[in-house]
Amino acid sequence: MSAPVIVLSHPQLGENIGAAARAMKNFGLADLRLVAPRDGWPNEKAIAMAAGAADIVEAARIFETTEAALADLQLVYATTARERGFAKPVLTPAAAAARLREAHGNGHKTGILFGGERSGLDNQEVSLATAIVNIPTDSFASLNLGQAVLLLGYEWFKAADQTPDLRIDHGPLAKPATGEEMTHLFAHLEDELLKSGFLYPPDKAEAMMRNIRAMLTRGEFTDQEVRTLRGMIVALTRGKHRKQNVTE
Amino acid sequence: MSAPVIVLSHPQLGENIGAAARAMKNFGLADLRLVAPRDGWPNEKAIAMAAGAADIVEAARIFETTEAALADLQLVYATTARERGFAKPVLTPAAAAARLREAHGNGHKTGILFGGERSGLDNQEVSLATAIVNIPTDSFASLNLGQAVLLLGYEWFKAADQTPDLRIDHGPLAKPATGEEMTHLFAHLEDELLKSGFLYPPDKAEAMMRNIRAMLTRGEFTDQEVRTLRGMIVALTRGKHRKQNVTE
Repeated sequence: MSAPVIVLSHPQLGENIGAAARAMKNFGLADLRLVAPRDGWPNEKAIAMAAGAADIVEAARIFETTEAALADLQLVYATTARERGFAKPVLTPAAAAARLREAHGNGHKTGILFGGERSGLDNQEVSLATAIVNIPTDSFASLNLGQAVLLLGYEWFKAADQTPDLRIDHGPLAKPATGEEMTHLFAHLEDELLKSGFLYPPDKAEAMMRNIRAMLTRGEFTDQEVRTLRGMIVALTRGKHRKQNVTE
Repeated sequence: MSAPVIVLSHPQLGENIGAAARAMKNFGLADLRLVAPRDGWPNEKAIAMAAGAADIVEAARIFETTEAALADLQLVYATTARERGFAKPVLTPAAAAARLREAHGNGHKTGILFGGERSGLDNQEVSLATAIVNIPTDSFASLNLGQAVLLLGYEWFKAADQTPDLRIDHGPLAKPATGEEMTHLFAHLEDELLKSGFLYPPDKAEAMMRNIRAMLTRGEFTDQEVRTLRGMIVALTRGKHRKQNVTE
């Protein structure tokens, strides 16, 4: 599956072109197009800032007009911060990313259009796009060009990313403890706590153990961690006996 | 409602500290803490790069150790790119943001911990955190520090943002056309197309108009746009009569 083309119209700073390329590479985009970059082309600062994405900068294509840069694209979203006062759908980055994925699923060529640092896209350029993408921000809304490309690239990648919301990195050897391992841990602990006099008075012991089980279950321990805890109980009770031996 | 504290451990470049502050301001974060910044403090490059967020840089607090920077926080997420091999929940930025919002809803103080540019967080620092946040990327995973702060800030903001996925910016005067306005447009158009001979042969006229209505409905026109279209029909038919007058 291909990915959207990133079109930067009249970009000014090579650093921002490079940062945009780096963000593209982070999120699986590759086709960079520049409309009349202010400082000419090639641009050494763009290559330096791109770091591991210098290949994207070097393969960038240069166009004289925005129309020419968009000529082969079938769906184009224009990123703008300002309201434009003409009827144009305005999408969040996530909604735009979902629609771009749909378009790519239908085999369409797409692009995302960004304006230059000083004044963004002009109305003529915005009118070429199917819809506007607006990045929601707090009252301080000034995002730099590389950051805007980063956020759109991030949403594009995320729209197809399968990473679970939560995973536990147990390492190569550990796995979540079983119910039996936890039961044995609790039995061991309860036994030692009874012997030590911690579970006192006796009519409160059951409620105390229930709270301790709740507290220890919440951590979703691994088998290795349960073994560590049991080793700690053994060591602490031995230490206690040693100390008692000394003081006796 | 307060917002998470951003803690940068051993940051190196003032530019990245400034970019982090700017990203914080974009997304409604304000409390910046630095653990042993390499180039000392204050840092002119941080203030320059922060642009409109210089106030956040100037209010940043400096700590000697990560433990001290996190001392008052009740929930801390550590951002890392590398797997750590110890059992620690790993969250996506969006899932972390949702959990941070929940914690703030419960009145808890939270923070997000970022490592320095060269080697990120060490294992000791990661072990201080409740969970790890990992930004999913394509195979090129190198995000710069300011970009990582931007993405976490963006997800924090987004988690409570009410912007609809799609809105139409009709401008101050226009509103979506009503069914009646569209019906009158279609009647006007059909009348003129019949007179002009476009809807031919007659047994195909109904299907042709159906396709035209489908095409024109898809654009979700405003009342102003419907008036413009009707004006265009009037102008075009007048033009045709004029031309006919000339050739007759």
